[in-house]
Amino acid sequence: MHIARIGVFGASGYSGMELTRLLAVHPHAQVTFLASERFVGRSVEEFTGVTGAVGRLAYVGFEEARAAARSCDAVLLATPAEASLQLAPALLEAGVKVVDVSGAFRLSDAAVFEKAYGHAAPPAALQARAVYGLTELCREAVRGAQFVANPGCYPTAATLPLWPLLQDGWLEKEVVVSALSGASGAGRKATEAYSLVELHDDVKAYKVLSHQHTPEIAQSLGRAAGTAVDVTFTPHLLPLPRGILSTAYGRLSRAATAAELTAALRRRYEGEPFARVYDSPDKVSLHGVVGTNTCALAVSCEPRAGGRVVVVSAIDNLVKGAAGQALQNLNLMLGLPETDGLGHLRRFHP
Amino acid sequence: MHIARIGVFGASGYSGMELTRLLAVHPHAQVTFLASERFVGRSVEEFTGVTGAVGRLAYVGFEEARAAARSCDAVLLATPAEASLQLAPALLEAGVKVVDVSGAFRLSDAAVFEKAYGHAAPPAALQARAVYGLTELCREAVRGAQFVANPGCYPTAATLPLWPLLQDGWLEKEVVVSALSGASGAGRKATEAYSLVELHDDVKAYKVLSHQHTPEIAQSLGRAAGTAVDVTFTPHLLPLPRGILSTAYGRLSRAATAAELTAALRRRYEGEPFARVYDSPDKVSLHGVVGTNTCALAVSCEPRAGGRVVVVSAIDNLVKGAAGQALQNLNLMLGLPETDGLGHLRRFHP
Amino acid sequence: MHIARIGVFGASGYSGMELTRLLAVHPHAQVTFLASERFVGRSVEEFTGVTGAVGRLAYVGFEEARAAARSCDAVLLATPAEASLQLAPALLEAGVKVVDVSGAFRLSDAAVFEKAYGHAAPPAALQARAVYGLTELCREAVRGAQFVANPGCYPTAATLPLWPLLQDGWLEKEVVVSALSGASGAGRKATEAYSLVELHDDVKAYKVLSHQHTPEIAQSLGRAAGTAVDVTFTPHLLPLPRGILSTAYGRLSRAATAAELTAALRRRYEGEPFARVYDSPDKVSLHGVVGTNTCALAVSCEPRAGGRVVVVSAIDNLVKGAAGQALQNLNLMLGLPETDGLGHLRRFHP
Amino acid sequence: MHIARIGVFGASGYSGMELTRLLAVHPHAQVTFLASERFVGRSVEEFTGVTGAVGRLAYVGFEEARAAARSCDAVLLATPAEASLQLAPALLEAGVKVVDVSGAFRLSDAAVFEKAYGHAAPPAALQARAVYGLTELCREAVRGAQFVANPGCYPTAATLPLWPLLQDGWLEKEVVVSALSGASGAGRKATEAYSLVELHDDVKAYKVLSHQHTPEIAQSLGRAAGTAVDVTFTPHLLPLPRGILSTAYGRLSRAATAAELTAALRRRYEGEPFARVYDSPDKVSLHGVVGTNTCALAVSCEPRAGGRVVVVSAIDNLVKGAAGQALQNLNLMLGLPETDGLGHLRRFHP
Repeated sequence: MHIARIGVFGASGYSGMELTRLLAVHPHAQVTFLASERFVGRSVEEFTGVTGAVGRLAYVGFEEARAAARSCDAVLLATPAEASLQLAPALLEAGVKVVDVSGAFRLSDAAVFEKAYGHAAPPAALQARAVYGLTELCREAVRGAQFVANPGCYPTAATLPLWPLLQDGWLEKEVVVSALSGASGAGRKATEAYSLVELHDDVKAYKVLSHQHTPEIAQSLGRAAGTAVDVTFTPHLLPLPRGILSTAYGRLSRAATAAELTAALRRRYEGEPFARVYDSPDKVSLHGVVGTNTCALAVSCEPRAGGRVVVVSAIDNLVKGAAGQALQNLNLMLGLPETDGLGHLRRFHP
Repeated sequence: MHIARIGVFGASGYSGMELTRLLAVHPHAQVTFLASERFVGRSVEEFTGVTGAVGRLAYVGFEEARAAARSCDAVLLATPAEASLQLAPALLEAGVKVVDVSGAFRLSDAAVFEKAYGHAAPPAALQARAVYGLTELCREAVRGAQFVANPGCYPTAATLPLWPLLQDGWLEKEVVVSALSGASGAGRKATEAYSLVELHDDVKAYKVLSHQHTPEIAQSLGRAAGTAVDVTFTPHLLPLPRGILSTAYGRLSRAATAAELTAALRRRYEGEPFARVYDSPDKVSLHGVVGTNTCALAVSCEPRAGGRVVVVSAIDNLVKGAAGQALQNLNLMLGLPETDGLGHLRRFHP
Repeated sequence: MHIARIGVFGASGYSGMELTRLLAVHPHAQVTFLASERFVGRSVEEFTGVTGAVGRLAYVGFEEARAAARSCDAVLLATPAEASLQLAPALLEAGVKVVDVSGAFRLSDAAVFEKAYGHAAPPAALQARAVYGLTELCREAVRGAQFVANPGCYPTAATLPLWPLLQDGWLEKEVVVSALSGASGAGRKATEAYSLVELHDDVKAYKVLSHQHTPEIAQSLGRAAGTAVDVTFTPHLLPLPRGILSTAYGRLSRAATAAELTAALRRRYEGEPFARVYDSPDKVSLHGVVGTNTCALAVSCEPRAGGRVVVVSAIDNLVKGAAGQALQNLNLMLGLPETDGLGHLRRFHP
Repeated sequence: MHIARIGVFGASGYSGMELTRLLAVHPHAQVTFLASERFVGRSVEEFTGVTGAVGRLAYVGFEEARAAARSCDAVLLATPAEASLQLAPALLEAGVKVVDVSGAFRLSDAAVFEKAYGHAAPPAALQARAVYGLTELCREAVRGAQFVANPGCYPTAATLPLWPLLQDGWLEKEVVVSALSGASGAGRKATEAYSLVELHDDVKAYKVLSHQHTPEIAQSLGRAAGTAVDVTFTPHLLPLPRGILSTAYGRLSRAATAAELTAALRRRYEGEPFARVYDSPDKVSLHGVVGTNTCALAVSCEPRAGGRVVVVSAIDNLVKGAAGQALQNLNLMLGLPETDGLGHLRRFHP
């Protein structure tokens, strides 16, 4: 099989480092460049611990990387949205495949984007080329795509279990998503607020009623339901590095048992290498997924029309919530086996 | 002022140890006995680190404690519900004041109790004597009481902010409570599941749609609203020892701003020594309360009728959620200043 | 008893905040000012959670504080060494009692100081006025002092158990001190290196063979032994906020049992409110001391001349290692009971 | 290349689970059985999260495994020492290659063994067949071995950096090893003492002057030095799941710089896939090794004869300290590439 030439912009952020580690052992990828304005010239091995060919690279600046990117098969943007907005057009024009890990191209409605992100949306023609890459639910579109907008971490965790339940009409069109994330979700931080002493053993909600992932979740759930879904989303910060746990609350639109809902999820995710449906929400945990590209999910409910439904899901925010799913999409875009470079990942915790 | 003679049953559990430490520096309490079947004869100082008169005590068995209790002014039951059910009647009969920290006497409806706890409810006459001790909301009843059922940890955290909002009619009668607790909430555990290796860096939901604190929250919110309130409650286990964060979701019954709701909470809790209302949910955190008897709370909303409301609150589960509130109630029952033995508590985290 | 007027420079650092909280409930202290260049005008309650009179203060700048300090009975300097060097002379001249929490005045030998701290030592006359305040070992000197240099956190933990053993001639004059500290020991940090993600679950040695506390430990042990003691000291950073554990290694200068050494420590610390001698090093832990002003200590050895000796001790670096000991010294300097404002402190961990 | 048939006894302990995960993606291993008395019949996937062929296995009992083992190429014993003592002889007699992860066969001196482990040493003839498997230092012996005693976790961490320094005569023959380990080192624990609430944020020394790994370290260092080395070893328990940091203290036997010692270590470990020498002890950390089979190591010293030497090293106790090194040895014994099934491992922490 062809060895794909891959470049990464933003390689020294947490998502970029995770991409670096995954690509370093990817059987069909050759890393052409790792771009980081901050670490230009520094050894990749020293910074990431990665050995072998990738470890022997040195970080390059964006200017140099832009030139190198033109001869790549694909480029991953692990950059802030503003940088992705600037980098993507030339790459696409050069015929390079692009996966953008930022939030720049995830929202199809420009007005919604501008309210959520506080700056101008991408030009409509550019945005129209971006395929939303929640792989399990958008696989065929991703397979043919040149340009994929990789989903946000919270939207990945929240959407995977809710999409099938809404699509099949089990749920009323109103959900609450109460989610928790490890601190790497905020990216590298050189602030007192993110210091160990300030965060250790603390938990708090943040961006209440204003987080930019809310419209992304609503957009996906609306697509699933075929109509608008009312989403309330609250993220919370956990005192640990990795992992997202999402607990979603809704109501049954018709009588159904937890076993029926579970069976519906199992049908939807049967054969999926990176989704695992458990028979009880109590079995879904960060331990079960951290270190892997897997989303764990489960549902419980009261078996009457209008009964309460609780849907719990978990992912590693840096893997399935960022770098892992980006690679999963890239594999599809390049015609490679979807699990390439991801199948060896293992749960970290005992 | 009178020095009250106090005994504690269940003194070696986490709530009992917290009571021990608080009582050890209480200015108007003399600890008569600390009963622990498990540690009979062992030094209190060795086990708890408490020095002074209380540290010099040795734990006694329940039989010996039962006799000693008759000459106490008050007894605290930090025992499992079954033990509290057995201990309370004789103590009450002997004229002793009793605060029960277990769940045995919190639910006024026997059928609801039996469904939640899986065993027989207290005799109706006994249950009728128990005053529910959510101090800020039930102060006058507690003041005259001989027998107080101390609220559960999750119900304390969830009810304090929601009660005034429901009582004043700001909210529709349907709420979701998604709450997180440190591991001491489960009590002392000698199981692999609660070992550091298994819990560290993990988070998971548990007892989804079946936790016994759900009817307790519903009972209080129903009293506040003057009508039934539909409560969905999911607890989650955090990988840290202490603290509860509760995030509650509801809808506005009429147009209102977050500032108006905040003002309503401030009016309700003005002058309260152990409730602090913040102007934003992002400011409520475990760090702000752990180590203290304070409940931190805040609210945000979308300012239209039907708008989303998010209410966040935090307590230390062993203090305001157990031992601290028990002492607050005891102070009232004994005619002591309510803050006695609690005012010196300080936030633990820097 | 007289109410002492106290001011604090550097009140918003971790040691300064700890002083703030301790002073807020000190029965014989009135806080006159809390100076923080960084937070001028901000509410002390908002920043520290402290309520009451101290909480109602606002931080003042150093210029304003300098004026206010002249009418204080005592001033605490929780400032960097450079700032302490500048602030101390005028305060002393004004007749104010001063406890300096920095390292500026701890080393009596200017050459040693300059090598350790990399800048000029205090003028000899000024240095000569500074009494080293390891309270249990220097109590009488502290009692009469106007100016106390509060010991470093590692030196406090390491010296308390080793001093008596060296003084009584049990040990050879060569010790290794391998110590571990929580991250608050480094002070407030707004760097990526101290972020939760970078420190969580990590442990490493730092400043190997070059930490500035080494000569401070050697100075104290030399005083104890009456001759130079060869000290090797390695600090390590722990992924938790508070606490120091020191494990020291030496050799018996003559045959002795662990019980004899333990008895020697017990004799030395009998009646001390803030030192607790355990009968085995395995019983000394951070849990036993964090939140309190206590030093826990224990010794084990091989009972032959030349036998290995292991001495373990633990303190809370912000309390006995900084603010608590400073207050203990201040109490003595002001003629107050030594335990004032410290006796209510309790172990934080269950 | 040949696919080796491998069985594991003790597969549900932490070392056994780590072996399971490593073997599951080993390119030349076929797992024949996973034996766990405790989980007989339970799904390996459910317990470990491992998918694929290994995940589809069910645990078998020891009796069944004993029979299956006879047709294996190799068997790994992740059992307690007592069980290893019983299992090994029949396996060896059947011609099966055996790696024992327990402490049963690591000490060549029976008297030393009995003092350390408190029960009878293996028969001399059996012990004589056991090759000590500190791979980097004993590779040729391991390659030809039928029976390997896998080193202890602390001895692996402490010995790798000290061996070359002693062998080359840089160090005096007296060292102190002060080491720290995550809680998985104690194995699965269903005790209150190992619960999250009791261990979180705590650190303490244990088995002071009596840990069974002390003679194992002394045995290796003695072999390196060609004469007895005086070893003082103190282990400490860290509040995290994985990782060992060892800080060793010694004296230079002749003048040398840190750069010379570092160069000596680099020469010794040049080309080694699982040893990485850093130029400063401050760069050695748990983060650098946890999740991998690598030992990180570095040295600093005072450059005079008799000068202090500090040697810091780090490993993942479950990988290089147990399962990973066992597989490394097994690869050699089976004639497979030494890095098989280990090269994809990556640092867990960002």
